[in-house]
Amino acid sequence: MLDGPFDRLVKQLAALPGLGTRSARRIALHLLTKKTALMLPLAESLREAAENVVTCDTCGTLDTANPCRICRDPVRTKGLMCVVAGVADLWAVERTGAFKGQYHVLGGVLSALDGVGPDDLRIDALVDRARGGTAQEIILALPATVDGQTTAHVIMDRIADLNVKITRLAHGMPVGGELDYLDDGTIATALKSRASL
Amino acid sequence: MLDGPFDRLVKQLAALPGLGTRSARRIALHLLTKKTALMLPLAESLREAAENVVTCDTCGTLDTANPCRICRDPVRTKGLMCVVAGVADLWAVERTGAFKGQYHVLGGVLSALDGVGPDDLRIDALVDRARGGTAQEIILALPATVDGQTTAHVIMDRIADLNVKITRLAHGMPVGGELDYLDDGTIATALKSRASL
Repeated sequence: MLDGPFDRLVKQLAALPGLGTRSARRIALHLLTKKTALMLPLAESLREAAENVVTCDTCGTLDTANPCRICRDPVRTKGLMCVVAGVADLWAVERTGAFKGQYHVLGGVLSALDGVGPDDLRIDALVDRARGGTAQEIILALPATVDGQTTAHVIMDRIADLNVKITRLAHGMPVGGELDYLDDGTIATALKSRASL
Repeated sequence: MLDGPFDRLVKQLAALPGLGTRSARRIALHLLTKKTALMLPLAESLREAAENVVTCDTCGTLDTANPCRICRDPVRTKGLMCVVAGVADLWAVERTGAFKGQYHVLGGVLSALDGVGPDDLRIDALVDRARGGTAQEIILALPATVDGQTTAHVIMDRIADLNVKITRLAHGMPVGGELDYLDDGTIATALKSRASL
């Protein structure tokens, strides 16, 4: 093995989510065979993104501008706010093109196991926005997990006294899903929330 | 989604071996949450490794020096040369600590499917080393695949006329392997090459 620069690079790559020492080594070797075509441009992109991408103070998403483009967009409905756990979730909703309101990124969900409490999330900022703003409806688009639903309940408690409609995403069968491949919980929920045709 | 610096970063990460768009996005987001602790050091490591890691002209491995530390090491046996497909294979052999000779990195194996011919590999350099050098034994430590064994045969043909002993790694059961989990080819080979107790 190489010492110095290579080992340091592999160690840093291996610490990234989804990568281990073996895949990090493979990536580092691949990069070293294409220094000018891949490696230096990647280093430059990392530096550039680190310098230019900032967190929006209003909604908490990442953008090259602060406030972000979504918060500044005059066409988007101000009275509708979608609360998501992370930036990736915001993007997932944006990709659908089915939502034209504002967002609020919590920065995670409550988790007793991982030691994430209400103060670690942007819940206070959400309450402030709900209290001070023009929001008429807040959609809690949080993960359909125990932690996600706990987070939704805590938020509901905090803004229950405000004159704001609070909704959550529908639970049920995913589009294209087959009964045989669905877990029991999803089928039970879909049965309970069945809709008339 | 963000345009500009973020998209470019995700695209470059997604092109790395073993990564796709989703994992690249996850990594980029992770990095952006830890700019000074992870992202900028990674950019710096990439640049540093690109600048300092070079290919050894003699054996073809990567090192911060040329010739590499293995080629320069006076303690290692000069008469014994281990031919490997890639740098990762060299490291795998080095990790065992069971080999104290020289190396020769081919830079891949012959592959009709991927369009890799003899001129794409460092076979000529190997023949030159075998002809001019003091090598008494050349170990072909190539993958036990069709392409790997084809490459071994091509090399053998090229150096058959020299007064050099040519060996290959033993084929058989991996240490700790269980018969039930081994493929038929490995069991058949292990049976054919059985050793007396």
